[in-house]
Amino acid sequence: MQQGQTVFFENRPKIVASAAVAGPKECAGVLGEYVDLALTDDMFGESTFERAERKMLLWAVEKSIEKAGLPPGGVDAVLSGDLLNQIVSAGFAARETGLPFLGIYSACSTMSEALLLGGVLTDGGYAGRVVAATGSHFASAERQYRYPLELGNTRPPQSQWTVTGAGSAVIARTGEGPSLTCGTVGKVIDFGVSDVNNMGAAMAPAAADTILAHLRDTGRAPDYYDLILTGDLGALGSRLVEDLLAERGADISANHVDCGEVVYAPAEDEFQGGSGAGCSAAVLNAYILAKLRRGGGIRRVLFAATGALLSTVTSGQGDTIPCIAHAVAIEADARGRGA
Amino acid sequence: MQQGQTVFFENRPKIVASAAVAGPKECAGVLGEYVDLALTDDMFGESTFERAERKMLLWAVEKSIEKAGLPPGGVDAVLSGDLLNQIVSAGFAARETGLPFLGIYSACSTMSEALLLGGVLTDGGYAGRVVAATGSHFASAERQYRYPLELGNTRPPQSQWTVTGAGSAVIARTGEGPSLTCGTVGKVIDFGVSDVNNMGAAMAPAAADTILAHLRDTGRAPDYYDLILTGDLGALGSRLVEDLLAERGADISANHVDCGEVVYAPAEDEFQGGSGAGCSAAVLNAYILAKLRRGGGIRRVLFAATGALLSTVTSGQGDTIPCIAHAVAIEADARGRGA
Repeated sequence: MQQGQTVFFENRPKIVASAAVAGPKECAGVLGEYVDLALTDDMFGESTFERAERKMLLWAVEKSIEKAGLPPGGVDAVLSGDLLNQIVSAGFAARETGLPFLGIYSACSTMSEALLLGGVLTDGGYAGRVVAATGSHFASAERQYRYPLELGNTRPPQSQWTVTGAGSAVIARTGEGPSLTCGTVGKVIDFGVSDVNNMGAAMAPAAADTILAHLRDTGRAPDYYDLILTGDLGALGSRLVEDLLAERGADISANHVDCGEVVYAPAEDEFQGGSGAGCSAAVLNAYILAKLRRGGGIRRVLFAATGALLSTVTSGQGDTIPCIAHAVAIEADARGRGA
Repeated sequence: MQQGQTVFFENRPKIVASAAVAGPKECAGVLGEYVDLALTDDMFGESTFERAERKMLLWAVEKSIEKAGLPPGGVDAVLSGDLLNQIVSAGFAARETGLPFLGIYSACSTMSEALLLGGVLTDGGYAGRVVAATGSHFASAERQYRYPLELGNTRPPQSQWTVTGAGSAVIARTGEGPSLTCGTVGKVIDFGVSDVNNMGAAMAPAAADTILAHLRDTGRAPDYYDLILTGDLGALGSRLVEDLLAERGADISANHVDCGEVVYAPAEDEFQGGSGAGCSAAVLNAYILAKLRRGGGIRRVLFAATGALLSTVTSGQGDTIPCIAHAVAIEADARGRGA
């Protein structure tokens, strides 16, 4: 069923398992006690950053399938993408799994697009079980999007730090776990920001647009959700999305948390916070889904990851930064056990 | 409904309109009489190759919506991706449409992934109408994947020529046109080819794997289809896929055509033929869908576009080339009018 930009999952597919892995810097923060694997070496035993990223993603996918009690290869498809050119982390990880693969790209909102499409496939009976996964690596992202680490460039205060981590969720038509109840497909929004070091400002309008569309399509007020979880707006972007929504009559300030803002321990010097496809993927699949599964105060979450759809070429050619956010509603059952 | 890697569309969503645009070299071949717009200048009035590519894609999307008799913005979502890093052609084109956007990436098999997911969304009632679109540009692909054109590098005889063109299809739950009846999600297949100038050899095993899976899941023989249309294997790759399938008991040689092999006029000096996401997109949306709509000998088509999931970084780091093919069945009705 569809209303505006929002699709509704009448069969309430379940997130029957999830897994996450993160790097040492990330695990010094809140992720440390929630991830399935806390890396002590962000090379993960590999010879290049790109291979380390790929290995994290594969590890998370395989771990999530294992945690779901399934044999390796026990899902019908993998929905995945990542920040590297030609989404090679996802493609190469999918090669190792031997599973049918649907490649997607939505920059740092890849996790929510994967969950949304995974919801469609399982809810509609086109798949029994799918994996939704993504990840990122600080060093591969710096090398591709900015400068080689060896240059030692200084970082401006509005910048964010790409999370080294990956997260994966197994979505099943039946089973135990928090339910996917609906999802809102985002539009590409561009407020004219061209500063590639200020992704929070670029992405906040897209997050606001999708959250507003979601509230409109569902007829819900922000307080329907215990948590409105944006992807990686960082500290500045989080203030902006709250302001933009308040201007348009939706006050989310009481229940809004941004994955990028909370991922690092305050002692870390990463300016606005975390970013990268792995940021919201690890925070959701480790921290937030653990809370949803345990029951308690967090029972309804709107997960609205955000992505900036630029490339180094578009920035070099003077284009501004188009951004997007996709949102999915994840709800534990009335008993608060997510079953 | 699902069987193995194949999803079935019980409501038979229709391709109610399609549109294509292609460059001068392409329009010297079969595309010339079928595209909606034959460019005389492959810059399309833009200042960079990348902007020309983006403009072609946007043009095809908008034209297909217009041909469907819909107002601009009269579809629920755009499913699109392309070969450029971070699929910027698709993202920037989607920004101009203002439509909800689902970014996908499957290299040169993006068209079939878009049709497959578009089939799921419309068949399942998650969208009334969606656009599936992709494109490519010779010059932007050369610059990104190989060498600047200004270098004048020679091309090896096993190479293919990236098509300058774009194609777009409007898929609707109800309406007139050829039906999407099922789709097969491909696995990532890697036979160990590492020659980035020999994509046909790299991709042929993936095409064979998906076509075999499709025949197995549907219980069909190759002659169920009037046409088995691979994406951009080129001349060599086409021979390989036929051989690989014959070895495994499926003889497709009588009804197999490859978009890359037929796209250029024989007089053109492009070695193995065409490639690029725009190759199968333009050939399908202009040439093949015209045949399906007119009725006649072509009433059942299996469209199996192929993609190579490498990047310049993975090749530089010594990796082989993982490939994929997704397939969709497109069928005209019994009266041969595609209604």
